Amino acid sequence: MANGANISFFFSPGSVAVVGASDEPGKISNIIISSLLRSGFAGRIYPVNPKHSSVHGMKCLPALEDADEVIDVAVFAIPAGAVPAALRGAEGKIRGAIIVSGGFSETGEDGKALEREVSEAARALRIRVIGPNCMGIFDTVSRVDTFFIPEDRVKRPPPGGLSILSQSGSFAATAMDELAADGIGVARVVSYGNKSDVNESDCLDFLAGDPATKAVAVYVESIDDGRRFVEAASRCSSIKPVMAVKVGKAGAGATAARSHTGAIAGRYEIYRAAFRKAGVIELNGYEEFLAACKAFGLQGRAKGNRVIIITDGGGVGVGIADACQAIGLDAAPLPEELRAELKAVFPPYFSISNPLDLTGSATDESYALALSRTMAGEHYDIAIVAALWGPPALTEALPGMLAQKPGFTEKPIIVCSPGGEYARKRFSLFREAGLPVFSTPEEAVRAAAVLARDGGRGRG
Amino acid sequence: MANGANISFFFSPGSVAVVGASDEPGKISNIIISSLLRSGFAGRIYPVNPKHSSVHGMKCLPALEDADEVIDVAVFAIPAGAVPAALRGAEGKIRGAIIVSGGFSETGEDGKALEREVSEAARALRIRVIGPNCMGIFDTVSRVDTFFIPEDRVKRPPPGGLSILSQSGSFAATAMDELAADGIGVARVVSYGNKSDVNESDCLDFLAGDPATKAVAVYVESIDDGRRFVEAASRCSSIKPVMAVKVGKAGAGATAARSHTGAIAGRYEIYRAAFRKAGVIELNGYEEFLAACKAFGLQGRAKGNRVIIITDGGGVGVGIADACQAIGLDAAPLPEELRAELKAVFPPYFSISNPLDLTGSATDESYALALSRTMAGEHYDIAIVAALWGPPALTEALPGMLAQKPGFTEKPIIVCSPGGEYARKRFSLFREAGLPVFSTPEEAVRAAAVLARDGGRGRG
Repeated sequence: MANGANISFFFSPGSVAVVGASDEPGKISNIIISSLLRSGFAGRIYPVNPKHSSVHGMKCLPALEDADEVIDVAVFAIPAGAVPAALRGAEGKIRGAIIVSGGFSETGEDGKALEREVSEAARALRIRVIGPNCMGIFDTVSRVDTFFIPEDRVKRPPPGGLSILSQSGSFAATAMDELAADGIGVARVVSYGNKSDVNESDCLDFLAGDPATKAVAVYVESIDDGRRFVEAASRCSSIKPVMAVKVGKAGAGATAARSHTGAIAGRYEIYRAAFRKAGVIELNGYEEFLAACKAFGLQGRAKGNRVIIITDGGGVGVGIADACQAIGLDAAPLPEELRAELKAVFPPYFSISNPLDLTGSATDESYALALSRTMAGEHYDIAIVAALWGPPALTEALPGMLAQKPGFTEKPIIVCSPGGEYARKRFSLFREAGLPVFSTPEEAVRAAAVLARDGGRGRG
Repeated sequence: MANGANISFFFSPGSVAVVGASDEPGKISNIIISSLLRSGFAGRIYPVNPKHSSVHGMKCLPALEDADEVIDVAVFAIPAGAVPAALRGAEGKIRGAIIVSGGFSETGEDGKALEREVSEAARALRIRVIGPNCMGIFDTVSRVDTFFIPEDRVKRPPPGGLSILSQSGSFAATAMDELAADGIGVARVVSYGNKSDVNESDCLDFLAGDPATKAVAVYVESIDDGRRFVEAASRCSSIKPVMAVKVGKAGAGATAARSHTGAIAGRYEIYRAAFRKAGVIELNGYEEFLAACKAFGLQGRAKGNRVIIITDGGGVGVGIADACQAIGLDAAPLPEELRAELKAVFPPYFSISNPLDLTGSATDESYALALSRTMAGEHYDIAIVAALWGPPALTEALPGMLAQKPGFTEKPIIVCSPGGEYARKRFSLFREAGLPVFSTPEEAVRAAAVLARDGGRGRG
């Protein structure tokens, strides 16, 4: 592994080749070229295939060695057995390879031998490799997109500040699809599968210095070099939030993680300790991973874990308070002076407490007033605003009135808006106001807890 | 409290009066009459208000005492202070009252006194009371709907076998709205608020004998008479599944529950013990409540907790296995003979294990084959099928092919179909096939766990 070497060219290539290029519908190589064209990649695209003279209306090279320049990234979408020869043929012609093909170490001894052959060839030729058995890169800055699932099945998120690193391609693709549906943007997504060369640590090194990346979320099945991971993650987390989920914790999950990318999942406790040491915020499973992506996609860290809950539904307020208690957030009682201040401005039937219950008489203005008054001063670090749309006085102006702004509040805010069609249709209003919005008390609380965690570095 | 008395007339009334009836837009009484008309209630509707001669084009009575018959249910939508007199005026004219008005024991000492006055009047006149401070009844059998939130804000679920009992009106309404959006049907929903008379135990007695109700879910802030609850819940749970969530467990949640319906939330441990004794399946929070409603809305109990996981996405399979491990479901390894049987019918690159990973090469047929073979015999009690729509061979025939049928499988099945737009649009296909479908591994596992629990009565 060429630890120190720079992999940034993967994220700003001037040229991308697709080896195995084809016009055949449904072929992986076809989807990749379509994605590159659709996403607006501005560099040069080289289809490569000895069987075709043109692909997608572009001139097709017989082999990489026929290129007139050194190509930054070559995507290999050919059968596993053909990869080593194709790579050797590319000597001096490519800087990096993304090998999306499966059939390597995840399939057993023969595949392991084949993967070793690829690694040795790449190292000898000084070619950096992402994969094999991966989806590669989706990047809203360079507009490279090698995820080989068509966009009608997996939507691509808009540009944003979140970057995702994932061993599992389907996990990354599913998360992208969710974030796209929820209007949350991303900067870079890397699926590295078997990581015969480029791994999470290389990517963390790059993302630490990447101005487009504001926060990093990592999906981990296994990490081979723990020391190097702790170094890279520590550096990155000292600059921006780094979160990670470790799957395959024990039992069937661990066994499955082992067979999935041919990795040794390892002892979960060791991962926890490494995350803590590196200042990495640990995420517990897929739900918390998504909640964290949505929260850090729109909001920043909270300074502490004291939460004010503002609601118009008593039951949902209680549910949020219960979930805060369970996860370790502090829904601290209202200080007496704040209580008096709120009693003076609100009707007597509002429940002036934490949760602060504005009841079915809630208005847009009462929500905004409650939020600005409770978030002023040093009493609370984060707000969870539960907005049930039942109260007739609530209007579509509400989300915009809760958005952070100077003189109102600049602390992080999470919205919980449970219910069906009416509520779900209004999710986009909250997101356009920069507020992450969730369907359940528990989801909102998970998101708030992630913003309030600091990987064990502060008071937490 | 008239313990033994029958409250079934609330669920099959021949006539409903609305006291405080009005044509004024946005008025609670107006919404209730609109709901009764829209939902198709076939009995007689009596608007009551001395200020109007007609409401909604129907003749309006000055007072309940002017009715020509004994009305089964009178809904009181008038200010709290006016309720006792209105109730006394109804002597001999109504069997039951639903008092939706707030302003009673939840507001302090004066409200408590008013509520006592109402209770005493009702007991003296032998009138059963639901409420005050409640939403009342939504019933797909009798088509009574007193939930005073307009249907454009809170959708009503279609007819189904699930009944919901809830102290909190907004909790019940939010759950109804969610279930409606997800196409899950209900039989009866009762919000009883301060439960000055009718409580969860009375409703459980009724639901135990209600042929329309196949399963019961209860939202509890507090229970006053624990002994009676254990009796009623035990009787009901011996006939059909009874589930309950207790909110206000500790700290801020407990304080909030106390102020919400004026209830003493009590020690959580006592509730747990009561649930266990009564064979009630305890649900942990809103998410698990919803998962349980969706699961029992379409499926029945599992005989045990051994789960087979079938997936086409390795990462999601691992996530499900992790979540099973965390919640206590047994994702037991494939027995050797089953493993051999599956190896003989599937391609070599499928991962024949638990999770059973059909990979990106999955077809509709391979899913159906995997499900029928693993659910045959006595190895597994329940299946979690994770269907990522990425694999190009999967079609919209898949959901129907996974549905239970004789000779295929009749054991419970839970579907996990994570992702964005493409996946979400296909949720209805699974539900039409009778399969509950969830967006995350954790949600699917929560639902499976509820079907596999038996309230501590069996092996658990």
